[in-house]
Amino acid sequence: MSAAHGVHSEVGALRRVVVHRPGLELDRLTPANCDDLLFDDVLWAEKARAEHDFFTAVLRGRGVVVHHFADLLAETLALPEARAFVLDRVCTPEQLGPTLVEPVREFAEKVDAPVLAELLVGGMTRADLSPLDVRSLRWSTLGLDDFVLPPLPNTLFPRDSSAWIGGGVTINPMAKPARRRESLHCRAVYRFHPLFAAADFPVYCGDDDREHHPATVEGGDILVLGRGVVLIGMGERTTPMGVEVLAAQLLRTGRATTVIAVELPKSHALMHLDTVLTMLDVDTFVRYPGLDPDALPTWVITAADPLEVVERGAAGMRVQQRQGLFAAVADAWGADRPRVLCADEDARAAEREQWDDANNFLALAPGVVVGYERNTVTNTMLRDHGIEVVAIPGSELGRGRGGARCMTCPVQRDGI
Amino acid sequence: MSAAHGVHSEVGALRRVVVHRPGLELDRLTPANCDDLLFDDVLWAEKARAEHDFFTAVLRGRGVVVHHFADLLAETLALPEARAFVLDRVCTPEQLGPTLVEPVREFAEKVDAPVLAELLVGGMTRADLSPLDVRSLRWSTLGLDDFVLPPLPNTLFPRDSSAWIGGGVTINPMAKPARRRESLHCRAVYRFHPLFAAADFPVYCGDDDREHHPATVEGGDILVLGRGVVLIGMGERTTPMGVEVLAAQLLRTGRATTVIAVELPKSHALMHLDTVLTMLDVDTFVRYPGLDPDALPTWVITAADPLEVVERGAAGMRVQQRQGLFAAVADAWGADRPRVLCADEDARAAEREQWDDANNFLALAPGVVVGYERNTVTNTMLRDHGIEVVAIPGSELGRGRGGARCMTCPVQRDGI
Amino acid sequence: MSAAHGVHSEVGALRRVVVHRPGLELDRLTPANCDDLLFDDVLWAEKARAEHDFFTAVLRGRGVVVHHFADLLAETLALPEARAFVLDRVCTPEQLGPTLVEPVREFAEKVDAPVLAELLVGGMTRADLSPLDVRSLRWSTLGLDDFVLPPLPNTLFPRDSSAWIGGGVTINPMAKPARRRESLHCRAVYRFHPLFAAADFPVYCGDDDREHHPATVEGGDILVLGRGVVLIGMGERTTPMGVEVLAAQLLRTGRATTVIAVELPKSHALMHLDTVLTMLDVDTFVRYPGLDPDALPTWVITAADPLEVVERGAAGMRVQQRQGLFAAVADAWGADRPRVLCADEDARAAEREQWDDANNFLALAPGVVVGYERNTVTNTMLRDHGIEVVAIPGSELGRGRGGARCMTCPVQRDGI
Amino acid sequence: MSAAHGVHSEVGALRRVVVHRPGLELDRLTPANCDDLLFDDVLWAEKARAEHDFFTAVLRGRGVVVHHFADLLAETLALPEARAFVLDRVCTPEQLGPTLVEPVREFAEKVDAPVLAELLVGGMTRADLSPLDVRSLRWSTLGLDDFVLPPLPNTLFPRDSSAWIGGGVTINPMAKPARRRESLHCRAVYRFHPLFAAADFPVYCGDDDREHHPATVEGGDILVLGRGVVLIGMGERTTPMGVEVLAAQLLRTGRATTVIAVELPKSHALMHLDTVLTMLDVDTFVRYPGLDPDALPTWVITAADPLEVVERGAAGMRVQQRQGLFAAVADAWGADRPRVLCADEDARAAEREQWDDANNFLALAPGVVVGYERNTVTNTMLRDHGIEVVAIPGSELGRGRGGARCMTCPVQRDGI
Repeated sequence: MSAAHGVHSEVGALRRVVVHRPGLELDRLTPANCDDLLFDDVLWAEKARAEHDFFTAVLRGRGVVVHHFADLLAETLALPEARAFVLDRVCTPEQLGPTLVEPVREFAEKVDAPVLAELLVGGMTRADLSPLDVRSLRWSTLGLDDFVLPPLPNTLFPRDSSAWIGGGVTINPMAKPARRRESLHCRAVYRFHPLFAAADFPVYCGDDDREHHPATVEGGDILVLGRGVVLIGMGERTTPMGVEVLAAQLLRTGRATTVIAVELPKSHALMHLDTVLTMLDVDTFVRYPGLDPDALPTWVITAADPLEVVERGAAGMRVQQRQGLFAAVADAWGADRPRVLCADEDARAAEREQWDDANNFLALAPGVVVGYERNTVTNTMLRDHGIEVVAIPGSELGRGRGGARCMTCPVQRDGI
Repeated sequence: MSAAHGVHSEVGALRRVVVHRPGLELDRLTPANCDDLLFDDVLWAEKARAEHDFFTAVLRGRGVVVHHFADLLAETLALPEARAFVLDRVCTPEQLGPTLVEPVREFAEKVDAPVLAELLVGGMTRADLSPLDVRSLRWSTLGLDDFVLPPLPNTLFPRDSSAWIGGGVTINPMAKPARRRESLHCRAVYRFHPLFAAADFPVYCGDDDREHHPATVEGGDILVLGRGVVLIGMGERTTPMGVEVLAAQLLRTGRATTVIAVELPKSHALMHLDTVLTMLDVDTFVRYPGLDPDALPTWVITAADPLEVVERGAAGMRVQQRQGLFAAVADAWGADRPRVLCADEDARAAEREQWDDANNFLALAPGVVVGYERNTVTNTMLRDHGIEVVAIPGSELGRGRGGARCMTCPVQRDGI
Repeated sequence: MSAAHGVHSEVGALRRVVVHRPGLELDRLTPANCDDLLFDDVLWAEKARAEHDFFTAVLRGRGVVVHHFADLLAETLALPEARAFVLDRVCTPEQLGPTLVEPVREFAEKVDAPVLAELLVGGMTRADLSPLDVRSLRWSTLGLDDFVLPPLPNTLFPRDSSAWIGGGVTINPMAKPARRRESLHCRAVYRFHPLFAAADFPVYCGDDDREHHPATVEGGDILVLGRGVVLIGMGERTTPMGVEVLAAQLLRTGRATTVIAVELPKSHALMHLDTVLTMLDVDTFVRYPGLDPDALPTWVITAADPLEVVERGAAGMRVQQRQGLFAAVADAWGADRPRVLCADEDARAAEREQWDDANNFLALAPGVVVGYERNTVTNTMLRDHGIEVVAIPGSELGRGRGGARCMTCPVQRDGI
Repeated sequence: MSAAHGVHSEVGALRRVVVHRPGLELDRLTPANCDDLLFDDVLWAEKARAEHDFFTAVLRGRGVVVHHFADLLAETLALPEARAFVLDRVCTPEQLGPTLVEPVREFAEKVDAPVLAELLVGGMTRADLSPLDVRSLRWSTLGLDDFVLPPLPNTLFPRDSSAWIGGGVTINPMAKPARRRESLHCRAVYRFHPLFAAADFPVYCGDDDREHHPATVEGGDILVLGRGVVLIGMGERTTPMGVEVLAAQLLRTGRATTVIAVELPKSHALMHLDTVLTMLDVDTFVRYPGLDPDALPTWVITAADPLEVVERGAAGMRVQQRQGLFAAVADAWGADRPRVLCADEDARAAEREQWDDANNFLALAPGVVVGYERNTVTNTMLRDHGIEVVAIPGSELGRGRGGARCMTCPVQRDGI
């Protein structure tokens, strides 16, 4: 079964993905709490679910096996050992206060696994737990609608919390506290769920209880270029420290020969690398017209030769700055400079479409990609260049500031 | 020597305190970074130091032994074991990236202890470390004036990072990431410095490497009322979970018989309880006219009787809500309701003086307190009520949003 | 023809409205400028237009005559006198700098009226005007995509900039500078367009060049309850001074016998009264569950009797505070207390639907209203109470934070 | 007497200035309202007054005649015609609502001129006016401590609201609504106060009731370089339109032969040109090390020759962009390039001192300047270059973000 797992490129045939159909957590977004939960707006939850269903139907129609994260999590929590693993880390004196640990744990031990999965992602309000016979400071300071455990609406974007690179996976230390519990859910699924528990694959990083901050990495910044090359963006969410920690593991285990790091300008609109640059075909990228990746500071990280290791420390890496991202990619691939497509729009239209994830494509196979229908300028341009764009509606999903790529965590994809 | 440590009230004779004369870190505050470092403004560092010297001269003039935190830290870092303890936790792959760990550690191992102490508090810029023969992602993304390790300007307020309660101390898990490294410095000093290493006292909380967040507590929220009673404010910095974690230890070790918790309105101006309420004499408090503490939600926490422990879980506490903070204090003390003074100002003057720490008094002895001279309305009112107010200048210090109480961590103080 | 104009209630048969199909101005909204232009997000302009077409088709299908504001403005600007009236107030030394006045005016004199109308609403960029042989400070400090004249995307909501009350109209002094030029366009249309120029109707306020700020009023705060009663909300956009200025005219001209003023809590979500309260039938309102209008401070304004005028000044009004908005309405109507419907939702769902204009209904006739389909909880509740809700799509339009009522300016509506 | 008025340079002997000793308005600044009133912090008002007294003592000690604005305004308001002029523009239906106009006007007509002057600058609260027998919407929506008329704490900086250039004055249209009423007070003083009423001088701009926005200019952006040259900064407060409107008047009246305009980066720290660049001696400037004025976009405005006027419109100006601010100054002066001093500080120290007005010097005579003592690095550097720096305390005054130059409006100064 182990053979089944592994992502060997950005554009090879997509075999299996994890997605998350938005649940209770979207119903709990409000204009007042959405900023804290990293959403720019509230969504019409029913419509968002319908759009998500359309998206997964497209994937299935193209032969992709779709795993729903809520199912994976529920099936995981049905296993006593797995449930204990999660609750040990959620029902802590730090999270709840000592007096509330036991009542919440007791509640959480009893409910059905699917309900528990829903509450862990959707959040637990005081009302969800009531009536509870408890005298606790935390409990008494909450209103009936307040969260004992906050929701995780960004579970909609499983791209970020874990990322398969070659035959292994990294469980990502998330940059924002509001998303950190997502990683715990991934840890539980990869450790205990039958789909993964029996398989033999390395977990590069993140599967421990250490404090990883500020060495954070999010999957939206990771592009598995193939041929041993991994490209990682550094910006609002992924730090140089995070890149080095991951790169050290990739090089040490031989799962990558070259890691290329590129520094994004700081801006919420450029949250992840895949909001401005994605790969469409074996030799083709699309980029946001407002940002030339070739002008960004770029570094190439390779394994240090043994002599260097002895002289300069044990980190085992050689970090070299160089000019030109795509030249670096070509060199690392041993291939020609890739084609980089870019819509010829006026500045405002480009800025608007970038905001609406116009560059956040998910490749289903070389030259076949999924994106939001609303980005008509970019989609038309790609079609003119021979790319097949499968358009999906995103009037609600797009308000979460994530596109087709953000909404998937590929678990199995061919190389190029 | 152990007998020397211990804080048994808020107003008993003050014997020894820790303070921090502001150093390099104040020179590194700028209008651009001060918000991130939790300062509302930049300070004229030279003048702030002169004002701080005035403050410590007042303390010494009243017979208080003054320990400078920079000295304590430097003397601690002179011990190889202690230096290793700190550097193990500062020079990590997460903080620096794997490639930068060794060069920075090497640098930090070599410098003199006072210099290292200064840099740990004042921050390390890339320029401080240069020239360094290193190829590191983190290093290359920093400008010469950027921080490899950010400064800790709030070290000026040692009140918060640790707090003596009776004969023991709590090392506080700080609410804001920008202050977390302060606690590490306290841990090193209390573990290794000769003043404390030989003594036998309990550390209630915080002396371990666990992630304590969100169970945070800061000393500005802790008032050691005496006679076994501890009052803790819950607000921007101290959470109900933090209070319960600390209360459990205080009750278990018998260092307190009653912990009273009071919920502050959420507001930056009301950052800590001691910004709106402090104790001046054995039966006298002063409060901010704009906030009636008696109207705030109040809970009394006592040890559960054994039967309750068995029935309701192992936390060992009984949490009971009750009306009226000062009635709760009187009951816990077994005394009359205390006198609560309050300036009779117009709303604007009161709001202005509160902002300038008009209620943040440090008692030197019963009825003798230190406060900023600028709060003339409050100071005059107190004098009219027989309190001796020793006024200190704070045109610069006050911009840090902390007064005389915030700037001290009493290590030895008599009971009442 | 004059007989044609006049709005005599909120729910009588709707005969004619002005709407604005969003144009160029929506294409010019970007994530970077949308806050300044009072939009929370960018819209997919094509889809927004399609949704708007659906809305106007619904109106026409119910027999309502629909005037497009862009047409009215273009037909107005085709008249030399009207064009001069507008350009005199747009091409000023203050707006453009003395050196740029003449070149822009020259450009604006020459273009066709529909193009000019489009640019006045859609904004003029430097590129729109280029090439222009001009040496001007303003011109040289602008980039090619910067605005010489900013766009007015809130023209989408003609409800606010003018409001018919009985047989006359008020041209509203807008609260936000970003919307002030909308009023100028209304002035031009009502003065010069053949539809209005020949008619004889009073303009209560706003048709002059005075600075009206801070006496601002916006139509979203005005509910023409009928039977001589006008209800006005005071909040983010409408001030007590604005209400008094308008009320004085309504009472003086006898167009209203009672003006009721109600004070809204300050909040962007409660921008206008019609975001929390609208009228559905001759005796029925719908309100936001999170806000009880009956608990809001309420005043009743009526004409002062002559004796009072002499004694207390010339303003001619009697302002009396009273308890209970709906009791005040009933009294003013000389009728029973109206029915006030309210969805029975959990707090979060209510807050979400309010945000999405769940209470911003446009009545087509007594008991027949138009609203967004997304607000399923509120719509279902109304249907259960016998209200016919005509649902329209608003996945894009709704991002502008305005519903069916906001998007119309009724010009002719029957009384009740 | 007319001969007495006129400012002919930045550094010639200073003869007379207007200043404002901070009054009631500072007592009314609070942490909650200071942002709206454009102050970054509250000030200790008593100390600020003492510091201001020190400043004016320094001025008088150097032979400068000091006029207090509060006196000028009070003496003006003592004249019935002048009082009517002001009250006609303050007690309007727009400001107060029709029902409140008469009661407030009645109150304001009766009080003594100094009291009225104090309230016009210090703000009128409902309490100030009570008891008032009035039924008014505005009045009933205010709390006892709320402002019927907001205070004008920036009156502390008379530099901005009017500016003498050569023998005439400009009354500046202020950028921020919170400062607009300051201009009205200037208009009254220059029109009616005996010191000015009898004199014959041109008022270039601003002495009318038109809406000048967005053509705003503030005096902190105006440097009267002498020899017919005026330098104006464009940034947060002064717009290109404002510069052109003023320049047209200066060139038309022959009071200047050259106006140089320079564009500042947008930043609150760089609010006015004189926060980064001032003149110290006949050929010497000081600049903020973090900003090279020579790299800023610069334009030279001169009178158009008659032919050009005919061909290119009636504005009468020739606007030419050119490289290098100081070269432009030298050319306009017909002199050598001036000396530009600049502290050799690290980036953080420079940023801190700029924030504390380290470059905002007021010249008393060529080579003799006043500045805050706290900026020790800059002051020392200037002394090393032969400039006499008279240091004044500003621990409180400096919190208003303005230095010695901001706090004065020179009325008479010699040329160079």
